[in-house]
Amino acid sequence: MTTNGAGAAGREVEKVWSALDSFRIEVPSWGFANTGTRFGKFVQGGAATTIEEKFSDASQVNALTGASPTVALHVLWDLPGGKKDVPAIQALEKKYEVKSGSINPNLFQDLEYKYGSIANPSAAVRGSALAHLLDSVEIGRELGSKDVSLWIADGSNYPGTQSVRRRIEWMEKAGPKAKVLVDTGHHYQGTNIEQIVAWLLHLGALGGFHFNDRKYADDDLTLGSIDPYQVFRIFHEIVSAKESERSDVAFMIDQSHNLKGKMEAMVQTVVTAQELYAKAALIDQERLAELQDACRLVEAEECFRGAFWQDVRPIVREWRVARGLPAEPLKALTESGYVEKVTRERGSKNAKSVSSYA
Amino acid sequence: MTTNGAGAAGREVEKVWSALDSFRIEVPSWGFANTGTRFGKFVQGGAATTIEEKFSDASQVNALTGASPTVALHVLWDLPGGKKDVPAIQALEKKYEVKSGSINPNLFQDLEYKYGSIANPSAAVRGSALAHLLDSVEIGRELGSKDVSLWIADGSNYPGTQSVRRRIEWMEKAGPKAKVLVDTGHHYQGTNIEQIVAWLLHLGALGGFHFNDRKYADDDLTLGSIDPYQVFRIFHEIVSAKESERSDVAFMIDQSHNLKGKMEAMVQTVVTAQELYAKAALIDQERLAELQDACRLVEAEECFRGAFWQDVRPIVREWRVARGLPAEPLKALTESGYVEKVTRERGSKNAKSVSSYA
Amino acid sequence: MTTNGAGAAGREVEKVWSALDSFRIEVPSWGFANTGTRFGKFVQGGAATTIEEKFSDASQVNALTGASPTVALHVLWDLPGGKKDVPAIQALEKKYEVKSGSINPNLFQDLEYKYGSIANPSAAVRGSALAHLLDSVEIGRELGSKDVSLWIADGSNYPGTQSVRRRIEWMEKAGPKAKVLVDTGHHYQGTNIEQIVAWLLHLGALGGFHFNDRKYADDDLTLGSIDPYQVFRIFHEIVSAKESERSDVAFMIDQSHNLKGKMEAMVQTVVTAQELYAKAALIDQERLAELQDACRLVEAEECFRGAFWQDVRPIVREWRVARGLPAEPLKALTESGYVEKVTRERGSKNAKSVSSYA
Amino acid sequence: MTTNGAGAAGREVEKVWSALDSFRIEVPSWGFANTGTRFGKFVQGGAATTIEEKFSDASQVNALTGASPTVALHVLWDLPGGKKDVPAIQALEKKYEVKSGSINPNLFQDLEYKYGSIANPSAAVRGSALAHLLDSVEIGRELGSKDVSLWIADGSNYPGTQSVRRRIEWMEKAGPKAKVLVDTGHHYQGTNIEQIVAWLLHLGALGGFHFNDRKYADDDLTLGSIDPYQVFRIFHEIVSAKESERSDVAFMIDQSHNLKGKMEAMVQTVVTAQELYAKAALIDQERLAELQDACRLVEAEECFRGAFWQDVRPIVREWRVARGLPAEPLKALTESGYVEKVTRERGSKNAKSVSSYA
Repeated sequence: MTTNGAGAAGREVEKVWSALDSFRIEVPSWGFANTGTRFGKFVQGGAATTIEEKFSDASQVNALTGASPTVALHVLWDLPGGKKDVPAIQALEKKYEVKSGSINPNLFQDLEYKYGSIANPSAAVRGSALAHLLDSVEIGRELGSKDVSLWIADGSNYPGTQSVRRRIEWMEKAGPKAKVLVDTGHHYQGTNIEQIVAWLLHLGALGGFHFNDRKYADDDLTLGSIDPYQVFRIFHEIVSAKESERSDVAFMIDQSHNLKGKMEAMVQTVVTAQELYAKAALIDQERLAELQDACRLVEAEECFRGAFWQDVRPIVREWRVARGLPAEPLKALTESGYVEKVTRERGSKNAKSVSSYA
Repeated sequence: MTTNGAGAAGREVEKVWSALDSFRIEVPSWGFANTGTRFGKFVQGGAATTIEEKFSDASQVNALTGASPTVALHVLWDLPGGKKDVPAIQALEKKYEVKSGSINPNLFQDLEYKYGSIANPSAAVRGSALAHLLDSVEIGRELGSKDVSLWIADGSNYPGTQSVRRRIEWMEKAGPKAKVLVDTGHHYQGTNIEQIVAWLLHLGALGGFHFNDRKYADDDLTLGSIDPYQVFRIFHEIVSAKESERSDVAFMIDQSHNLKGKMEAMVQTVVTAQELYAKAALIDQERLAELQDACRLVEAEECFRGAFWQDVRPIVREWRVARGLPAEPLKALTESGYVEKVTRERGSKNAKSVSSYA
Repeated sequence: MTTNGAGAAGREVEKVWSALDSFRIEVPSWGFANTGTRFGKFVQGGAATTIEEKFSDASQVNALTGASPTVALHVLWDLPGGKKDVPAIQALEKKYEVKSGSINPNLFQDLEYKYGSIANPSAAVRGSALAHLLDSVEIGRELGSKDVSLWIADGSNYPGTQSVRRRIEWMEKAGPKAKVLVDTGHHYQGTNIEQIVAWLLHLGALGGFHFNDRKYADDDLTLGSIDPYQVFRIFHEIVSAKESERSDVAFMIDQSHNLKGKMEAMVQTVVTAQELYAKAALIDQERLAELQDACRLVEAEECFRGAFWQDVRPIVREWRVARGLPAEPLKALTESGYVEKVTRERGSKNAKSVSSYA
Repeated sequence: MTTNGAGAAGREVEKVWSALDSFRIEVPSWGFANTGTRFGKFVQGGAATTIEEKFSDASQVNALTGASPTVALHVLWDLPGGKKDVPAIQALEKKYEVKSGSINPNLFQDLEYKYGSIANPSAAVRGSALAHLLDSVEIGRELGSKDVSLWIADGSNYPGTQSVRRRIEWMEKAGPKAKVLVDTGHHYQGTNIEQIVAWLLHLGALGGFHFNDRKYADDDLTLGSIDPYQVFRIFHEIVSAKESERSDVAFMIDQSHNLKGKMEAMVQTVVTAQELYAKAALIDQERLAELQDACRLVEAEECFRGAFWQDVRPIVREWRVARGLPAEPLKALTESGYVEKVTRERGSKNAKSVSSYA
């Protein structure tokens, strides 16, 4: 296609293409494996059962969307041998042409972390947690990853059972390099997440995102499935931030689906993210600033929301074709037969149902 | 325009036009007057100060959008003389070519309703409330309105200060003709409003809607300004219900703006409602049912949400022109000079600031 | 002790004793077994691993508190053989002197229920679910249980993926004997649960409670650990209802602890329930009604909340001793050595950690 | 009374008395005046109509409770003449033996603040706001007040209508002396307020509290009326903080009642605050720390919550008598005839109902 001709329309196409060319969103290795609820797992025959299968799946998502060249790894699940597993991971990176992304320590699953990890009242446990963190940093360094993503269970379930004050003191030892990871499913209902994002950008404290959506609590639903306008608003804060503030912010998916097909859900998520990011890129920032300054509220809102109303799917489709990607990733996934193939290959390993609640 | 040519696209246009031809949303008289918060009012010079000015404004909104031929009236504010005021209202209906819509009793503002109205512990107050309700029914009958819309303050602020049980007994006297009025700003955070709507339709108990949006509580923001996807989902439940279930459901706006210009906000609201309703009309119901039956979740969702992604604004614009309406209502409002004109005429009556909190 | 002497104080003691004599709260079999989160289980060495061990634990709780003579059973986990397992259960009832309580079908764990059970789009799955329900009724009949407690996963995660309308139609087949089970952890934040309870009592539709507490969502924390005043208010609605409305309402605990010791948590829960129920029994209903009728708000609130402020622990302690129960159940549990004993006996069966998320 | 005799009980009495001797909570001038909702006011005949009447009422509350020797002032409502009004205020301080407390600028009511105050896009409005703030500081200095309490309306109602980023930049000019004012009705549902308080104490950033309670949003209900256990937990964080962290934290009431009698509600609030603070003071901090360190969760919780269960009213009553205060402040208020007296005196000034919504 040509983008030279059409004036306003042409400039819109340029904005979207430029946004898409730079847009990257990381996929999580655990999003390809069978996971579950506390009651058990609804096992999918095609789910990944090994780290190689996870790389294979991630590679497929990237081939279809062009936007997910890295895969987040969980130390406990993906590198159970720690640093010794690095060469094997590097071999997979080469074979599947996706790189390792963020390194995720596991500070919540072992029995010793029952009462907390880096803020556990026991100095020994805090020591273990710190050692595991330093190992994770080391793994990240060897794999060329720039982020270590912490998810810790250092609250307490019941008032009075832990000292909030001392937990704060222990926690503070995280140090000045720690930044905030915004998980879009972790806020109270009604929270103005985009305002939090704006503050974190302003303070230079935004490390990145774990994207997902939710109806109520931490439901890990596919991004944009419940409140797509909110994702658009978050992307707007990113798009309109200074280059220096946002250049280092990591976009990651943190979802692990029980009902939707795992590959389908991941491709759908990346595509939705691309489209919502493209919408945010369409906002006429200059015009918006003028209207905001003049407190012309309705016009400012229409300028802003107009970009959300715009159907960017045709432009995104053209960009995909121009970049040698399939025009419709979800359709291409179906036509590729990939899910059927891995289901045949992996089915027997996934056969065993896991449900043993009580 | 012709809709014969384009196959799928043509059928979409037909669906939207047909939806828009039948879509009606009532505007509230109190949305044109200066209202405020507990601390005072940010007075707008062009706000309506008389019932005639309210009819004039409502008429203007209808002329611009073609979708709001009725105006909701509040007995206390619009018919302070009760039934005696009916002839004056009828004269205004004729002059301004909009009809009276729902009749709203006022059971929350007078001192006697301090501790409740139809569920007040005092039999005398319950009697007053009932009398006022019956007067409102009578007014509605004379004006040809089919709905009496109740908004009552019969809860209690503090546990223990009223008997929930007895309030229920008093309330139940509302009788079997009472239906539910869903105010889209009155639910707890996270509530699945579309499920409630589906249940009420199923039970034949849905009277209508008071539309508005909110970030947290009952904020009375313009419809679709915070969560447009939810409005789309609610409209989907209406559109996909049986004709018999939905034919009698009233769509009403309940908003009264302090920051946005009153006329601008009302036109914007009607336009947004039309567009979101048009999107819901685009859902391929047959295809959706097939995919739902087969539990093909991602495809069902894409089929459903695809209609939301579609930019219906061009189709709606063509419909407007074909119906003799302005192509862009908000722009037409600006160009008409209406707001400037009424500001000149009404300014002196609105000059007096009202702020006398403590 | 004597309760004849002391006037007001004596009448208070009588009220509390009478309330405690009739108060029963059922314990769940699954509350004694090792359960977990989606990430794994923090295994407790003393957790029950067989249905006999669950009866043993339940029996111990009842011996310590005098208030939990029945244990709720889960068909899948406790009667995997269905009706064939009934005689074995009856033998345990005799041996451990606790009876079977509510029967809980399992309609959420098997793969076939992935997309719903009694409202699944597949008629075959709906058939399976119904058959399992009828089996559960049969089991209940043979065991002399009066309640079958349903917990179903028949929603849908994503808008558009299921038809809310058709789910309602399928669900309605539950029939007129179905009543509502109020789980105190299942409501939106801010919900006025006591009002819902009052309505259900009024409509004759309250089946019973699954008691637990929560900070945010369905956290299954011990009852009264986050908002004890709410539990008091719920009990007030029960205590002040007509005998006919409340005689058939089942009180059940639905908690399964990961951090607190299982036996400790269960005893603590029953004791807290007794104390909060005793507080509710202390409300002077006649005086309260007078003050409510007169809208003397502050006095009504003080009358109501005064019962909550009262420290009922000394009175409850005396009641325990008079009834041949240990004065301090938690202390008695510690002194009994029961937890240490079962940990020795069951430890090897619980040794195997279960953590296999991804 | 003597506190020497009784061992544990004696030490408890000492703790409570010592806590009560130091406990101060400020009352707001606007809590004595007639205020309302957006729909109007339910006028109380005895409400204060002048600054002198507000001082008189505050003085009465302090005489009854011994805990509220200062009254918060609102510049716009109480010192409309600005600094010129200071001498008149000082005369009232002398006459009524209560001092001026926090100074509250008014940056939300004037028309110029419609689109924000210190973060308004207009430099002129920001200048006005700053000037008003500096005036307020000056007034505070002359009156010997240590706190200026800001309540600003610098958000925006609609996404896109203001730049969050630029608002942050303008806001930041507040400077390093600004501390956080925690209003207990301003948080999202489910917020762990005590954790926020602990963090603010740790960071030296806690300025003080605006105490009130709420069922859902910013309802301004009397403290402890909905969730008394939360207030206890907040007080625990204060009581257990280092002296240096908490010595400067201001406790203020921010409530203005429409249904409860104004004097009654204020006395009730102070009394409830005293009782909940006394309960927090009873926590055995040393024992609690030991149990927390050992992760003995149930015991730690019982140690903590046991103080909440304790009925402190008898001890507080004895303290009142020993300090020359009425044993039961609410009863004493009734017996004093104060409300009847001021209703007679002020009734005519309050006669005029204010209800002019639309």
